[in-house]
Amino acid sequence: MEQATIFPGRIRLGMVGGGEGAFIGAVHRHAARFDDRYELLAGALSSSAEASQRSGRALGLDPERIYDNYKQMAQAEAAREDGIEAVVIVTPNHMHAPVARVFLEAGIHVICDKPVTTTSADALMLQALAKERGLLFAVTHNYSAYPLVRHAQQMVREGALGTIRVVQVQYAQDWLAAPLEQGGHKQAAWRTDPAKAGGGAIGDIGSHAWQLADFITGLKLDSLAAQLSSFVPGRAIDDDVQVLLRYEGGARGLLWASQVAVGCTNDLRIRVVGSAGGIEWVQEQPNELKWTPLGEPTRIITRGSAAMNAAGARTSRVPAGHPEGYVDAFGALYSEIASHLLARRDGGDPGAAQFPTIADGVRGVQFIETVQASSLSGGAWVSLP
Amino acid sequence: MEQATIFPGRIRLGMVGGGEGAFIGAVHRHAARFDDRYELLAGALSSSAEASQRSGRALGLDPERIYDNYKQMAQAEAAREDGIEAVVIVTPNHMHAPVARVFLEAGIHVICDKPVTTTSADALMLQALAKERGLLFAVTHNYSAYPLVRHAQQMVREGALGTIRVVQVQYAQDWLAAPLEQGGHKQAAWRTDPAKAGGGAIGDIGSHAWQLADFITGLKLDSLAAQLSSFVPGRAIDDDVQVLLRYEGGARGLLWASQVAVGCTNDLRIRVVGSAGGIEWVQEQPNELKWTPLGEPTRIITRGSAAMNAAGARTSRVPAGHPEGYVDAFGALYSEIASHLLARRDGGDPGAAQFPTIADGVRGVQFIETVQASSLSGGAWVSLP
Amino acid sequence: MEQATIFPGRIRLGMVGGGEGAFIGAVHRHAARFDDRYELLAGALSSSAEASQRSGRALGLDPERIYDNYKQMAQAEAAREDGIEAVVIVTPNHMHAPVARVFLEAGIHVICDKPVTTTSADALMLQALAKERGLLFAVTHNYSAYPLVRHAQQMVREGALGTIRVVQVQYAQDWLAAPLEQGGHKQAAWRTDPAKAGGGAIGDIGSHAWQLADFITGLKLDSLAAQLSSFVPGRAIDDDVQVLLRYEGGARGLLWASQVAVGCTNDLRIRVVGSAGGIEWVQEQPNELKWTPLGEPTRIITRGSAAMNAAGARTSRVPAGHPEGYVDAFGALYSEIASHLLARRDGGDPGAAQFPTIADGVRGVQFIETVQASSLSGGAWVSLP
Amino acid sequence: MEQATIFPGRIRLGMVGGGEGAFIGAVHRHAARFDDRYELLAGALSSSAEASQRSGRALGLDPERIYDNYKQMAQAEAAREDGIEAVVIVTPNHMHAPVARVFLEAGIHVICDKPVTTTSADALMLQALAKERGLLFAVTHNYSAYPLVRHAQQMVREGALGTIRVVQVQYAQDWLAAPLEQGGHKQAAWRTDPAKAGGGAIGDIGSHAWQLADFITGLKLDSLAAQLSSFVPGRAIDDDVQVLLRYEGGARGLLWASQVAVGCTNDLRIRVVGSAGGIEWVQEQPNELKWTPLGEPTRIITRGSAAMNAAGARTSRVPAGHPEGYVDAFGALYSEIASHLLARRDGGDPGAAQFPTIADGVRGVQFIETVQASSLSGGAWVSLP
Repeated sequence: MEQATIFPGRIRLGMVGGGEGAFIGAVHRHAARFDDRYELLAGALSSSAEASQRSGRALGLDPERIYDNYKQMAQAEAAREDGIEAVVIVTPNHMHAPVARVFLEAGIHVICDKPVTTTSADALMLQALAKERGLLFAVTHNYSAYPLVRHAQQMVREGALGTIRVVQVQYAQDWLAAPLEQGGHKQAAWRTDPAKAGGGAIGDIGSHAWQLADFITGLKLDSLAAQLSSFVPGRAIDDDVQVLLRYEGGARGLLWASQVAVGCTNDLRIRVVGSAGGIEWVQEQPNELKWTPLGEPTRIITRGSAAMNAAGARTSRVPAGHPEGYVDAFGALYSEIASHLLARRDGGDPGAAQFPTIADGVRGVQFIETVQASSLSGGAWVSLP
Repeated sequence: MEQATIFPGRIRLGMVGGGEGAFIGAVHRHAARFDDRYELLAGALSSSAEASQRSGRALGLDPERIYDNYKQMAQAEAAREDGIEAVVIVTPNHMHAPVARVFLEAGIHVICDKPVTTTSADALMLQALAKERGLLFAVTHNYSAYPLVRHAQQMVREGALGTIRVVQVQYAQDWLAAPLEQGGHKQAAWRTDPAKAGGGAIGDIGSHAWQLADFITGLKLDSLAAQLSSFVPGRAIDDDVQVLLRYEGGARGLLWASQVAVGCTNDLRIRVVGSAGGIEWVQEQPNELKWTPLGEPTRIITRGSAAMNAAGARTSRVPAGHPEGYVDAFGALYSEIASHLLARRDGGDPGAAQFPTIADGVRGVQFIETVQASSLSGGAWVSLP
Repeated sequence: MEQATIFPGRIRLGMVGGGEGAFIGAVHRHAARFDDRYELLAGALSSSAEASQRSGRALGLDPERIYDNYKQMAQAEAAREDGIEAVVIVTPNHMHAPVARVFLEAGIHVICDKPVTTTSADALMLQALAKERGLLFAVTHNYSAYPLVRHAQQMVREGALGTIRVVQVQYAQDWLAAPLEQGGHKQAAWRTDPAKAGGGAIGDIGSHAWQLADFITGLKLDSLAAQLSSFVPGRAIDDDVQVLLRYEGGARGLLWASQVAVGCTNDLRIRVVGSAGGIEWVQEQPNELKWTPLGEPTRIITRGSAAMNAAGARTSRVPAGHPEGYVDAFGALYSEIASHLLARRDGGDPGAAQFPTIADGVRGVQFIETVQASSLSGGAWVSLP
Repeated sequence: MEQATIFPGRIRLGMVGGGEGAFIGAVHRHAARFDDRYELLAGALSSSAEASQRSGRALGLDPERIYDNYKQMAQAEAAREDGIEAVVIVTPNHMHAPVARVFLEAGIHVICDKPVTTTSADALMLQALAKERGLLFAVTHNYSAYPLVRHAQQMVREGALGTIRVVQVQYAQDWLAAPLEQGGHKQAAWRTDPAKAGGGAIGDIGSHAWQLADFITGLKLDSLAAQLSSFVPGRAIDDDVQVLLRYEGGARGLLWASQVAVGCTNDLRIRVVGSAGGIEWVQEQPNELKWTPLGEPTRIITRGSAAMNAAGARTSRVPAGHPEGYVDAFGALYSEIASHLLARRDGGDPGAAQFPTIADGVRGVQFIETVQASSLSGGAWVSLP
């Protein structure tokens, strides 16, 4: 992807949310800068006008393009000849929909964090709106950009695994094993507030686990049975979710996402088993993929090696053995989005997006809602819409 | 356990099943011999009288103690002054109950493979009969004898993990990913015949996974929702099972057992997460246990090291770094059973068995039946008896 | 290090070498861009003027600051008011010295790839020159910037390991196991040309291995015995090096670097054993460090976790479990150099550099020369200068 | 190897050394019992007559075959019609030669622990004596019996690795990192006493590391340079050894053995790199072998899987995924020796021994002596005899 850096054009970018103290805003900026294909020019970086100003200055933005709120920003940027082409939305989840709507209505492409909204109605509204306006709505399911996740997806598409039988995916963390939110931890506070997050473990990381399985397998989920738990005393939202999955065509699966899993840091992993072989990928060691053809020894496919397929190579940069990580993959996603937007700017056909868009976002929110519905009804089986 | 070898007495042992070509019979004999505490003296090693004779001679048994069938054997051995004290039952599952019954009725202790029976009614009958006759009925859930499984159990008992929140257990194999039973593979044939096995993946390995969780956590299972699958075309029995678990007291869990999991050889593993820490143990690397106290780095507890607790040390033999494995643990189980039987022989109090007995066997069969009931009703939640 | 992005100032940067097709030039640019603290403004990117122009334009440089050669560049940039403050040198090794000399003489700080020169005389010359001119001469031993390498260094400094006894370091690759250089592979060609590289495995990666041990332990090397090999038929330079090490104070060590180690991709790893504990770090899994206090279980120290010390935290960015990799660490090194240069620009005291400088570069070249001298004399013990 | 158990004959065995408190004696007894091919009938189990009696009775030996000393035992057993056929020697190293001599002279086969003697003169004497008497002299280099070590050996023999280039072998422990011998630890005491052990780390475990490399590669060692260290204050013998190796034909290697390597438990591992591929095996995870064909992904060869070759399968018992360990491999070695002895007893041709014999023992002691000579001369290169 070094050729990226030789492209003369960069996407003019704005950001809503992601001001001082935010974790994910900084990651998005790193990611956008990674391949040098964006110029961050404007921001409404906090729900507090004062904090937004302070954060914007700290980032070296032109003071007149630091906005007190996102509405003002959408209006002003849409009016400028050199206004932003795309906005990154990294607010708490409940603000994704209103912010995205305003920018879409202003004719600005959207790059939005996940889960894309807190209701599927909102997600469908945004999908329709983006379609109507002919705008891109990308969703930053960053884990889908790891080279070996792409490699895995292509293996499935090419039939290397045969008929898929079992999907096992987990996303286990332990950062909320103690009641952090009761001690003034800002991120823990909004992420455990049902009104702001729209879901606890299921929304924050369960959605990533679902998406990883969805992305690699391409299987359509038929129905599920789920149990949400709030293990930490006093917590108002789920911090653990366990789901049985039934896919169309007969595949079955298990999904576990937890924020109380002491011993797991950010343990997102997936195993996909088919009639002709199985694969396993572990996010904390993202530079290798285990691939076992039926009846043969397991192979370790290394990122950057000759064994990697074209889809994997597309988001891989440095040679094998030089570990790529979280920011690299996040940056690869941003780079793909830039390529897509530049193709549009140049009037060309960007082709089908290889990265997650609002269509994935809609299904992701529907998954969350179905899990919540199942759990509320005692773990009954509920069909996806 | 070297002191074992200094004990002058050995248990006089017989075996039903386990003749030529049987995998598990040979393992039981290795295990019994491991610490030199048994003398194998009699056998009805096959359902075919001829094969039984041939196998018995191959094992060097006294020809007059090689029997054509188990009924003859129970009768004859019970009548001898030097008759066997205990019988090992390693037939296909559906024969466990009738064989065990006959030996219990003959006053002979039973050591039985798992699942103990194919119906819970039979298991309860055997439990009552063993109690009535004052005989030991041990069940060879061999994985429970690994030193670090004992260590983990003691950690839970001592409260090191705090309140248990999540149990995740899996037993994934791939030996039945192709339709072996359609090609004359003897073991595959009976293990995939519902009449002989009483359950496929759920009976053969799901029962081990259940038992491992049961043994370590001591939690009582309240209810479950399960889906059994038969992925291999033409197979008449389940080869994959996925279960959501609810324990009394609020803990939740997932269990996955599969015989079609290409990429997994004998991947039995368990994670137990509590409010104060989490542990993880993987059967294929049985000499280490990961232990993470809340907020601290993960420790690798090595079998044989100073960090191992007394319960772990009880079934550990060679020094740390000298790997113990499957036969060692199976042997440790046999050694414990020998100690128990010798204490009884000497008229002493053997104390509470540290190893699985018919009580565990009963619960195991009830677990299997509940899983089957849930799956038959479309994955509905079903309470344990 | 997000605060980095809030710093209004960036270092004005130039680059010599690193044009089209170069691996390491692109990595340096990624690294410099990572924390947004540099502006790449000028370059003489190739020894061919034409290629330099093409590469410079591809990178979007101002055409008048794309130079045909490094001498022209040094002169012109030194004469501009907005000239570059620092130059990155990423040419083949034999050109490091002449290029660095010209820029130092022009009053421009140097950031140079390793090994810093092909002779220790040159390295000493550059050290003296940099000192005389009061300029920074940083050497990009990038592996020293991994957070857990810093953590390890601080552990040693604080005495956590007690007296160091054994150092075991290896850097094993397999990319040159076949005679790539005979097939037109550009990088392989210069790296296996003694005139351009100054050393094969010893120069390219042995120097990294030496530096990693030097950086973490702080031990002074007394003498060594070495064997260089050229295993691939027709190769004119070493592709494997094995060294016994004696440190002042009694510690002993082994160093192995290989480019023919089939099965190893970029397997740089180090174990340091002291009287009070031992550590192990593996570059391909850079987000964990194994730490074993004498008599206690091994701990896995995770990057980003609460267990990481201040030195580790200094070059760590994203939360634990979100893997950082090669570019992250390289970027952290660049970020430290930027902080240092900005402090100088502001007239402040930058303090002692935490990153490798020409002093390390001198010792590194002396190490290479001593290894070569030992090997030439049949593996005799040779003292370091 | 289950067929072993069907063999009617067992080898009549005696033991010298290995009484109460001895680690390795118990392991040898386990190993001999493993496949039921030996009958332990006689012993002089301690240098103290009283302890020998006590130990023999504890093992259930016939009192008249418990001897006060090994000379008495050799004489008496040789005179009995049912006397032992083979003796196991598990005394401290300095006693191996005199004991072995006496038994060979009495016409009794010898199974001896390693290092076989403390001087190569003694080893050569025993070699000659065994040859003269036509007796087997087996040496229990147990690590050579692990199935995947056999698999690796066969791969090398078949040329799968091409021309061998690099051998890297280590045996790192930490049990002597503190001065245990100064606190009354019996095993530590004799093992650190130069008069009894004949070598510290080099003799105890360096000899195993050497043998593993020797066994797998079949390469002839030309010369070496070594440094022995005694890191623990007050220790009279080496506790760490580091060696550069030169093989005939051009291969090069490194050997490290240490008893002070905090963080390593029993970390014996080997990497063999050839022109066509590389392998890696780690004793603490003995059930897998990494195999990387040049230019292809690494394969994990699992013990018991279809990918294991005939040599590996020969010493493998239980199915893949059911871990075998230290005692299993030790037992496999004993079983091979039994097959050899039974073939001799039956007057057949046992064929070439697949297991280590006195020829390996001689070379092992020569290796130790060469290492000691090199170290004494300041690490100079010394040729093997």
